[in-house]
Amino acid sequence: MTAPKADLRVAVIGVGVMGADHVARLSATTSGARVAVVNDHLPAKAAQLAATIPGCRAVEDPLAAIADPGVDAVVLASPGPAHHEQLLACLQHRKPVLCEKPLTTDLDTALDVVRREAALGVRLIQVGFMRRFDDEYRQLKAALDAGELGRPLLMHCVHRNRDVHAGFDSAMVVRDSLVHEVDVARFLLDEEITSIQIVRPATNPGAPAGLQDPQIAILRTTSGRYVDVELFVTTGVGYEVRTEVVGERGSALIGLAVGLVRKSADGRWGGGIAADFRARFRAAYDTQMQRWVDAVAAGARTGDYADGPGAWDGYAAAAVCAAGVRSLESGRTESVELALRDTPE
Amino acid sequence: MTAPKADLRVAVIGVGVMGADHVARLSATTSGARVAVVNDHLPAKAAQLAATIPGCRAVEDPLAAIADPGVDAVVLASPGPAHHEQLLACLQHRKPVLCEKPLTTDLDTALDVVRREAALGVRLIQVGFMRRFDDEYRQLKAALDAGELGRPLLMHCVHRNRDVHAGFDSAMVVRDSLVHEVDVARFLLDEEITSIQIVRPATNPGAPAGLQDPQIAILRTTSGRYVDVELFVTTGVGYEVRTEVVGERGSALIGLAVGLVRKSADGRWGGGIAADFRARFRAAYDTQMQRWVDAVAAGARTGDYADGPGAWDGYAAAAVCAAGVRSLESGRTESVELALRDTPE
Amino acid sequence: MTAPKADLRVAVIGVGVMGADHVARLSATTSGARVAVVNDHLPAKAAQLAATIPGCRAVEDPLAAIADPGVDAVVLASPGPAHHEQLLACLQHRKPVLCEKPLTTDLDTALDVVRREAALGVRLIQVGFMRRFDDEYRQLKAALDAGELGRPLLMHCVHRNRDVHAGFDSAMVVRDSLVHEVDVARFLLDEEITSIQIVRPATNPGAPAGLQDPQIAILRTTSGRYVDVELFVTTGVGYEVRTEVVGERGSALIGLAVGLVRKSADGRWGGGIAADFRARFRAAYDTQMQRWVDAVAAGARTGDYADGPGAWDGYAAAAVCAAGVRSLESGRTESVELALRDTPE
Amino acid sequence: MTAPKADLRVAVIGVGVMGADHVARLSATTSGARVAVVNDHLPAKAAQLAATIPGCRAVEDPLAAIADPGVDAVVLASPGPAHHEQLLACLQHRKPVLCEKPLTTDLDTALDVVRREAALGVRLIQVGFMRRFDDEYRQLKAALDAGELGRPLLMHCVHRNRDVHAGFDSAMVVRDSLVHEVDVARFLLDEEITSIQIVRPATNPGAPAGLQDPQIAILRTTSGRYVDVELFVTTGVGYEVRTEVVGERGSALIGLAVGLVRKSADGRWGGGIAADFRARFRAAYDTQMQRWVDAVAAGARTGDYADGPGAWDGYAAAAVCAAGVRSLESGRTESVELALRDTPE
Repeated sequence: MTAPKADLRVAVIGVGVMGADHVARLSATTSGARVAVVNDHLPAKAAQLAATIPGCRAVEDPLAAIADPGVDAVVLASPGPAHHEQLLACLQHRKPVLCEKPLTTDLDTALDVVRREAALGVRLIQVGFMRRFDDEYRQLKAALDAGELGRPLLMHCVHRNRDVHAGFDSAMVVRDSLVHEVDVARFLLDEEITSIQIVRPATNPGAPAGLQDPQIAILRTTSGRYVDVELFVTTGVGYEVRTEVVGERGSALIGLAVGLVRKSADGRWGGGIAADFRARFRAAYDTQMQRWVDAVAAGARTGDYADGPGAWDGYAAAAVCAAGVRSLESGRTESVELALRDTPE
Repeated sequence: MTAPKADLRVAVIGVGVMGADHVARLSATTSGARVAVVNDHLPAKAAQLAATIPGCRAVEDPLAAIADPGVDAVVLASPGPAHHEQLLACLQHRKPVLCEKPLTTDLDTALDVVRREAALGVRLIQVGFMRRFDDEYRQLKAALDAGELGRPLLMHCVHRNRDVHAGFDSAMVVRDSLVHEVDVARFLLDEEITSIQIVRPATNPGAPAGLQDPQIAILRTTSGRYVDVELFVTTGVGYEVRTEVVGERGSALIGLAVGLVRKSADGRWGGGIAADFRARFRAAYDTQMQRWVDAVAAGARTGDYADGPGAWDGYAAAAVCAAGVRSLESGRTESVELALRDTPE
Repeated sequence: MTAPKADLRVAVIGVGVMGADHVARLSATTSGARVAVVNDHLPAKAAQLAATIPGCRAVEDPLAAIADPGVDAVVLASPGPAHHEQLLACLQHRKPVLCEKPLTTDLDTALDVVRREAALGVRLIQVGFMRRFDDEYRQLKAALDAGELGRPLLMHCVHRNRDVHAGFDSAMVVRDSLVHEVDVARFLLDEEITSIQIVRPATNPGAPAGLQDPQIAILRTTSGRYVDVELFVTTGVGYEVRTEVVGERGSALIGLAVGLVRKSADGRWGGGIAADFRARFRAAYDTQMQRWVDAVAAGARTGDYADGPGAWDGYAAAAVCAAGVRSLESGRTESVELALRDTPE
Repeated sequence: MTAPKADLRVAVIGVGVMGADHVARLSATTSGARVAVVNDHLPAKAAQLAATIPGCRAVEDPLAAIADPGVDAVVLASPGPAHHEQLLACLQHRKPVLCEKPLTTDLDTALDVVRREAALGVRLIQVGFMRRFDDEYRQLKAALDAGELGRPLLMHCVHRNRDVHAGFDSAMVVRDSLVHEVDVARFLLDEEITSIQIVRPATNPGAPAGLQDPQIAILRTTSGRYVDVELFVTTGVGYEVRTEVVGERGSALIGLAVGLVRKSADGRWGGGIAADFRARFRAAYDTQMQRWVDAVAAGARTGDYADGPGAWDGYAAAAVCAAGVRSLESGRTESVELALRDTPE
């Protein structure tokens, strides 16, 4: 009788809202993995969480957690500024890592990560652009890949949040919200972004003082395709993500809020809008985790410890957002310069 | 016993595709009006048409047709270059006129028309922006006027045609297609447009050589609201007009092709897309005509011979499109300068 | 110069809500017709209305109004019990008549009308089943006629009202509401109904005492196709009419409330539901009137003074509803026996 | 350091299409469980499958597999006729069991299972009505439970398949297809079904000879609510499941095929329809499995080894279907008699 499958032992670095969500997913949803180590800059928080999970330890030093021989792989949900050092540790110890965006918080360190991983000759880093695992986005990608729309020409995106936490500023709209559409555009169009322009409309009176909201971003790709993105993070309505690709022979649209449709005694019909991204993309997060666990388990054989967007995708998205922030200030179209542009993706 | 109502006697100037459509509508659909005179630069065509309509004469000179004492009102469906002289004739003889767009073909003559009508102190000119009579646009306008969305912040428009006739050039996309969204934006947002930028994406290989298609137009209004418009006139798909307004407290969307929904044996569900604007906006054309006829009939009493967009609306739209054509060339954002900006609208 | 077209002179018998609506439509919307005579069992009401319409007289006796040499055609909007005598008057004077449903209030008189019109050898009677002129129903009929669904097998209908006037009883649900679906079924399936069963679910507590609401009707056609109909007249929600045809090679659905779609700050998306049948079917009423006016005007040439459902359609629908009322009592499936079944339709 | 969580050791009895699907799900998707034993009436098939799964054995005798001390819980995907004996074995050994429908193949044995489980005083049996785990059905149930529609009055269901395997007969439409709507009706309305009538429309020429397809089922519940169900298993179109509940204060609808919407060069818009139930309900199957695994793991503490429909639900559905098969023959409404009706649910 063969031995039963051994679960992948994962360290989760950072157990704030997103990290705790990943811990729960790994423990209760994802097959073939378990949380072996948790770490947080608040040690008591990590210890408390570890106590609720069979076979899980809290480790105070994130680098020690990554290096731990009882850890097969890492989920990085720590604050962005810690990512560079922690990613380098993952590369040093050849630990596969699922890194929440951003890859790092500036382009130099992001590029450093890309170079070092390339030097190892093995994909160890996956970036958490989970929309690539969403059913609707996958259907859209499949329609494009099958040539059903001809070559894509234009893309229209809408990215709306109900509200944002205090302290959310205009550049964060670009770096934390737009970055998803940047990755979606690169994923769907299979091209890099070469320039970006941010338009500043009259602001929503309901937005916090100083926040430029809404914004319109206009992206241009290598071969001259254009993407426009409405960014509106204080709609007061709900979380709404919509993407339409217009191609040479047709167009395709995802993200209209449908599902349960109700007719009510006020003479209205309609449905509900997801309150936030977790409601909308729960299944995508689950799929992402499961596929990453599977890729990691197969990595020794395939030499590839990721099944999704890699470090380059994280870097490229960051570069576009950096130009976006420049455009936000200058009011002009800003070019995106990608180092290592010929790096095989 | 009172005498039955007397029908309004209309002269239709220009009986090409659009003019003939108006003749048919006035004869068979519109109550309270009849076609008394037709004119065309091909006199045989006008004569042939007149012979099919009881009580209708063909008149060879358009200015004579307008001046004819047996004509109460005029529908102008002649080529754009003829409009200036014919509109002046209508003003001179105080004949109410429903003028197909464009008002005239350049800004100086358009402004001249606006000034002369203003000097008469009576609205005689209505421009054929028939979308203002479309049920969905009216619902959208009503939702805005009722404050249901709060103040509007952004507007997204899509304007797609299946194909265009030979000779359709890049500036015509701006002047003949975009002009409708320009009027819709002014109508819905109740503000003038102050600048315009035309983005030139990679062109559709199915478009005629030299035609910049698709285009993206970005309009800014007086108070800083923004409107983006996809213009794509060679989609090969169908006629699709969509408008979404995003406001401070919600958004509203019209123009999703719905109606009859079919499930078919190829495992697909869906419906049909209107082949052209006549299929999509037939009822709007009918409503426009009927309301204009009614306004004309009531004009002697009210001093207003129009119930819809006037000469100023035609001029303002033309001014925006002229700036759009400049942006198409320059690649820069171009300002829109409106003369008489303080003219009461 | 030819004389201008002469408008059709119409007598409207009965100027309650529906009749007054027809008077307004004929006066302001329908081209080629005018209201020459109005009649009502409340003479003052008719006189008052006539005074507002140029060239219109009130006539106290409905039969005199029908016989009047200044009347070319008749719109019958009087109470159902008066229809038999008034229809016979129309036939006697060979006046084309657009008769609001019901044709008459019992099967014997309905059949009498059918026989007498057949004896004249000319179609003079049109019944006001205006859904046949509705765009969505016409699209559905066209899809069926083109064989796009194969032969139809099943039909599902929903007929919902917000509320009904006091005194509306269970049999009226069958005779006044279901009758429309009966005609739609006969129109779309091109077959007669051979049996009907009315199912009596638990009643809506919001319905007036004694009213069986909702009801489910199950109709069987000559060749064994089935139609189920939800009838629910006190929904408190709005007017909702939906029809789905399921065929051998696909299905098609009309009547989902779409149009303007709004996203609002309560996290909901959706649209409005028509409050009543006039909002939903206004255009159908207009089209019906215009096509009937045109048919009447052409009748002397074609020998057919109707362009729509005729007396037989009114009789057949009444026969089905009579069986429905029997089923409502008996709880059993009741057969529909049509006299003159081989009358050419 | 605590020991890591121990996975639940599951025996899967029957590894045909559905059983193999469950094996794959338990192995790759479901967290906290692993397949320890497989069994099939084709021993080679089970052995071959076991060889691909770490720690999994094939056991030739299904009763031995159930009794095996290395098995904590059982998934029953064997043919229906084997269920009775295998379920009794599960009860005897107190092994929690997820039993694919039908519970058993006749009412006497189903009731026997219900009685014996009740005698044990612990819920060990869960029946595989996975729709109860589907997001849309859960939303619908939640809307009902929250009273958003008032009390439900009517329910309309559509159950369409693209095609069926050879040998599928008229009674199987009732037992294998309708059974899902029976459970959905009981789940959503929280009442038992008291009578059923099967209507036999003209059959689809594309259906195999002898198969009554489509069928319409009309169910009545204890308190007189009605459910109509279209059953059409040879549509040639796709898998389509739709449910609408009409309540005292509104209605709610799920199952319109939406998602990716495409506009294409044939002038059509729309989306795809799931080809079969696995595409449509994959997530529901996953959720069902995970929740059952969790319930089983917690069972020693809670005394309840199921988190979903139990044996009574399987019995009740079978009783309704048996009456349905009688109605299919008799053409009459047939009563549903439930034994043990007062058994606590």
